[in-house]
Amino acid sequence: MKDSNYVEMEEFKLWKSHVQSQELYLKHYQLVCAASVVILMQLGFTFLEVGSVRVQFTKSILMKNMVDMIISAIMYFAVGFGFAFGDGSSSGGLIGSTNFFLSSNQNASDIHHSSAGWVYHWSYCATAATIVAGAIAERTQLVAYGVYSIIGSTLLYPVITHWIWSPTGWASALNPNSLIAPVLDDAGGIAVHTCAGMCSIVACFFVGPRQHRLDRKGNFVKDLPKQNQSFIVFGMFVLWFSWYAFNAGPAILAAASNESLMGNIAAYTTICAASSGATYLALSVGLRKKLPEPGDLCNGILAGLVCSTSGCSVIKPYFGIVIGSLGGVIVMVVSKLMRRFRIDDVVDAVAVHLGCGVWSALSAPLFAETVLNTDEGLKYAYKSCGVFTGCSEGWKYLGSNVLLTLLTIIYVTAIVTPTCFILRQCKILRIKVESERHGVDIVEFEGPAYNNDMKSRRSKLFNDVKHASPRIGMPHGDGTC
Amino acid sequence: MKDSNYVEMEEFKLWKSHVQSQELYLKHYQLVCAASVVILMQLGFTFLEVGSVRVQFTKSILMKNMVDMIISAIMYFAVGFGFAFGDGSSSGGLIGSTNFFLSSNQNASDIHHSSAGWVYHWSYCATAATIVAGAIAERTQLVAYGVYSIIGSTLLYPVITHWIWSPTGWASALNPNSLIAPVLDDAGGIAVHTCAGMCSIVACFFVGPRQHRLDRKGNFVKDLPKQNQSFIVFGMFVLWFSWYAFNAGPAILAAASNESLMGNIAAYTTICAASSGATYLALSVGLRKKLPEPGDLCNGILAGLVCSTSGCSVIKPYFGIVIGSLGGVIVMVVSKLMRRFRIDDVVDAVAVHLGCGVWSALSAPLFAETVLNTDEGLKYAYKSCGVFTGCSEGWKYLGSNVLLTLLTIIYVTAIVTPTCFILRQCKILRIKVESERHGVDIVEFEGPAYNNDMKSRRSKLFNDVKHASPRIGMPHGDGTC
Amino acid sequence: MKDSNYVEMEEFKLWKSHVQSQELYLKHYQLVCAASVVILMQLGFTFLEVGSVRVQFTKSILMKNMVDMIISAIMYFAVGFGFAFGDGSSSGGLIGSTNFFLSSNQNASDIHHSSAGWVYHWSYCATAATIVAGAIAERTQLVAYGVYSIIGSTLLYPVITHWIWSPTGWASALNPNSLIAPVLDDAGGIAVHTCAGMCSIVACFFVGPRQHRLDRKGNFVKDLPKQNQSFIVFGMFVLWFSWYAFNAGPAILAAASNESLMGNIAAYTTICAASSGATYLALSVGLRKKLPEPGDLCNGILAGLVCSTSGCSVIKPYFGIVIGSLGGVIVMVVSKLMRRFRIDDVVDAVAVHLGCGVWSALSAPLFAETVLNTDEGLKYAYKSCGVFTGCSEGWKYLGSNVLLTLLTIIYVTAIVTPTCFILRQCKILRIKVESERHGVDIVEFEGPAYNNDMKSRRSKLFNDVKHASPRIGMPHGDGTC
Repeated sequence: MKDSNYVEMEEFKLWKSHVQSQELYLKHYQLVCAASVVILMQLGFTFLEVGSVRVQFTKSILMKNMVDMIISAIMYFAVGFGFAFGDGSSSGGLIGSTNFFLSSNQNASDIHHSSAGWVYHWSYCATAATIVAGAIAERTQLVAYGVYSIIGSTLLYPVITHWIWSPTGWASALNPNSLIAPVLDDAGGIAVHTCAGMCSIVACFFVGPRQHRLDRKGNFVKDLPKQNQSFIVFGMFVLWFSWYAFNAGPAILAAASNESLMGNIAAYTTICAASSGATYLALSVGLRKKLPEPGDLCNGILAGLVCSTSGCSVIKPYFGIVIGSLGGVIVMVVSKLMRRFRIDDVVDAVAVHLGCGVWSALSAPLFAETVLNTDEGLKYAYKSCGVFTGCSEGWKYLGSNVLLTLLTIIYVTAIVTPTCFILRQCKILRIKVESERHGVDIVEFEGPAYNNDMKSRRSKLFNDVKHASPRIGMPHGDGTC
Repeated sequence: MKDSNYVEMEEFKLWKSHVQSQELYLKHYQLVCAASVVILMQLGFTFLEVGSVRVQFTKSILMKNMVDMIISAIMYFAVGFGFAFGDGSSSGGLIGSTNFFLSSNQNASDIHHSSAGWVYHWSYCATAATIVAGAIAERTQLVAYGVYSIIGSTLLYPVITHWIWSPTGWASALNPNSLIAPVLDDAGGIAVHTCAGMCSIVACFFVGPRQHRLDRKGNFVKDLPKQNQSFIVFGMFVLWFSWYAFNAGPAILAAASNESLMGNIAAYTTICAASSGATYLALSVGLRKKLPEPGDLCNGILAGLVCSTSGCSVIKPYFGIVIGSLGGVIVMVVSKLMRRFRIDDVVDAVAVHLGCGVWSALSAPLFAETVLNTDEGLKYAYKSCGVFTGCSEGWKYLGSNVLLTLLTIIYVTAIVTPTCFILRQCKILRIKVESERHGVDIVEFEGPAYNNDMKSRRSKLFNDVKHASPRIGMPHGDGTC
Repeated sequence: MKDSNYVEMEEFKLWKSHVQSQELYLKHYQLVCAASVVILMQLGFTFLEVGSVRVQFTKSILMKNMVDMIISAIMYFAVGFGFAFGDGSSSGGLIGSTNFFLSSNQNASDIHHSSAGWVYHWSYCATAATIVAGAIAERTQLVAYGVYSIIGSTLLYPVITHWIWSPTGWASALNPNSLIAPVLDDAGGIAVHTCAGMCSIVACFFVGPRQHRLDRKGNFVKDLPKQNQSFIVFGMFVLWFSWYAFNAGPAILAAASNESLMGNIAAYTTICAASSGATYLALSVGLRKKLPEPGDLCNGILAGLVCSTSGCSVIKPYFGIVIGSLGGVIVMVVSKLMRRFRIDDVVDAVAVHLGCGVWSALSAPLFAETVLNTDEGLKYAYKSCGVFTGCSEGWKYLGSNVLLTLLTIIYVTAIVTPTCFILRQCKILRIKVESERHGVDIVEFEGPAYNNDMKSRRSKLFNDVKHASPRIGMPHGDGTC
């Protein structure tokens, strides 16, 4: 038979393979887009952290945010990504050991070993790193920040992600031989937020409170003055925007997704944020009889965003009202507890990321709905159903999430405690007394980060340079030829 | 016949359905991307509004921007989206009445009822809400802002969008039985900008001018000092960026689009903005013989962006020169008129959004070209042609747009006037005299939003905490082990 | 034969053409997305430049950034795009001469003449324009900035891009009859950065150093005080984010791309930035024994991003370590040389963009790997291989890149020198002595850009308006009905 009215198999296959290649191209493209928006979170965190510190500590926090990025990129490229998504079968799913420096042969269909996968996971990793640094701001040496970044981008985030997200991880939904019911952690409620929050609390404990935070009797004084409430709010809005990419990333990574998935994720994220913010606002006004500071309300909103991470692709938007609202309560309570125990956390990172990260990890297996994410490759896909959403298997998933949350807490503590101890012994953890008293910008940098005083500087300069005129260049114009 | 050299229908259909599903997935993905970029507009407006208020009113404007977001998200989720895109056939296309709390069964191909549709329309709705708040800044109580947000995200924006964009709306291009020639309002020149601008002028009228805006005789003094021209410009650049998503959204929503559509939208948007800015600059220099303030030029540019909304998918880029330039004239004239009538609009929202929103609504049926947007589902698609672009039917479209613009103005006035009246009677519209005199940040919050004075605060703190040393944590390091 | 079990050719072709149309739609969509993110670079540059100038020169730099955008949009629409991508065969590939005002009949598959192509290339063009303006900040008249923008968006960027990127350009990979081995300049290391950097150095030379930069003997004093280190860092983070779109754009434009391409580009960009930043930091600490200013480290990072432009789609990520590190050295050395030769470049634009732009242009043919970018339409596609990556043809590409870099330097000098000379003769190049001494914001605008002093202004206003009360509006509320 030969009939040009009908389509030959060969032509069809050629066309099909072209379309499949386009689909794969698009997956990589979308992943890189998501990653770049998550990278913009660094702008958000920088706004937030600069706004939260005192003005004489500005340069050090700026340096810290850049050094974080630089170190985490290099370390995650060199070894972190290999630990996280390299083949871990020889270690029983504990840690990967290939693809350092992206040196494996790249196969675009194996996105977990590709450059796009690296960029995407690095964007998460850098986020985890920068959270810690906010908590211990104003009193930590730059070199100690650097050490945290190295640890965070090699031993902390990569190892935990290997467990729960890598195809060879021992608790991963992508591993057909996972040892337990796979963990449900879409966008890092455990891997990013619980991890970073736990790291923050340990670091805060070791580095100790800021000098001026204590009165003569060693009690906490009122909050130290945050330099710029506007910056904090700007940062929150940048983070809110970026969070859509943060939560959508895992759905892009998934081998298949249903059509409505992106919309559900975005709606759920929004409702969590708004509900948490509303609850925080209501509690503040209800309990304290006055409005919260704008910067505090930002934490109320960020709490909701953190709450949304673990279950964003499997929870229906209206449950966000419950989950987000509880997040608003948690962030307020944990923040009070931190003050009570005199742990000085400049940006309330522990309340936001540890408190709500843990709640996020618990909420996912409680409220998951079946088949929002219909990915055949994922073990949990067809049966993900929560304890409160009508499925007896929900308890197994809850068990796995509780276990991994606890293991993350233990593991982070086990790594960060000796690190801090050594840094402290070597006296490279905390800045010098004078730097803290007068402001590190004054003592260790070349003066303040801002030069706003128009008159005094002009006069001073004017005295310095009186009668000087440019040697090169022209006499000053008056607009006539 | 059975011949494996040829493609069987079943295999072809399976493949086709896979590709169609991917296309639908991409539509949702693109819509969520556009929505998240429109949500970033909140950062732009916050920059703009913080930059425009006096420094002692900073915290209240920050709170307002967050409260707007929170309230509009919850209300639009609860009822707004149902009013806007729920089935409105029982009301004759006046208002929808299903899909509250996104509770309808979701069908991805019915994007107007999907979560992605919700996120996208909420991003528009939140934009409309925040515009009003800028106009009445510095003197309005937070609770009054809250009431505006509730009204705006339930009765204003949703009802108007039902009329012109919902498949059951009485004037909608998507309704095959629309009562009139369908309205041509791509990206909300009527639904967002005319609506928000009209709401602003009514609210400004009722809340009255700021205390210091009047001299002893009750005449307007010169503009009050805007706190930060840089913030205003930063905000404008964020808005310019986001505007590409704002204008592209409707084309993504459309059932089909021609290939060049996105480029045309983006080019037209750009040319409108640049032409309006150029005209504003030329007028300022020509009439006043001096340069405009940077913040004023921002309004000149934003005017062009507003002008581009209604017709962005049907007008050729070069017409943007005419339409944008006229926008630059309009914003200057309306702003002068507002001063003349002593209506105190802090950010010139009325000039930018009402003035240019109306012009946008008129310009679309004047300059539309046929078949830029070849969507079969849209009534106007194949015949959209403007009065000045060679088509006798253009007058019908112009008539519809004029009618809907007028109805929007009337409807908004009818809703907002009694709201303002009640708020005023209950004395929850305007802040207290002392708050306005000394700055609401000082009176109602815990002091100023900024703490920049390095020396005085350090000394003060130092006195408070003299001799204190951290109880937890380590002696301060000097970098030696 | 007629058998409904098999797929008829006609149906298949219809479907294929639908899918092809969708692919083309997506290409335009992606290009517009990339363009809008590159447009956001204007926010980044504005942050950077405002942060770098003294506080009394804020308004002029803000105006400059807006005027740049407005002028470059209009000029590039009117003539620039025609010069760049219009048909240039009649000029022998030197300059295009069609499609002014986007007036050619648009054919979506010919993306180089489409609206999407215009938006995308304008976003690059506006970037090139704004770089120059940063270098000559604080002392240049606004009208001179305007002239630069006009020249830059008509004669400089468009002509150079015609040579190397247009299908009819004499050195372009898209021109099958190119005169030399085609130039390898993915994202404008030559066309954007070398061009803008060269323009900056010539302009800096002619406009001369800032008044206060010289002491009585005419020697350079220490750096003048930058107003806001935080703004500089915010700007850097915006630019880092936008750079992913900047470097990805050319791959979107390409007729076909392999699936991993986007990931490789993003990873390479990241590694370049981080390596350059790390090297800059290490050099600063190693040589000066103290930390660099945050704003200086930003230049160290931006240097790496510039280095990544020319070869981003053909160089493997790990080479970014070498290329980026050298970028960190280059920016430091060139910056020192500029000081040595007393050329006053406010934002170190020459060091970052000229120094690293040239290095970027050289690095591409040195390190290119074959077949990362498998575009049949590109002459270099299948054989691109670098001098250090095992291919004897590499020298030819290196030769072409060296030649075009030199030609760009010569051409820019030839255009900008007479322009500056005329501006100088007409006394519209440099601002008046008083403006420079007291700050242009004070002399030529209506006072400073910032109004932060809460107390003094309030009192002053209060005196002005004592006893005034609003005529319209209500008595101030106390919250009771």
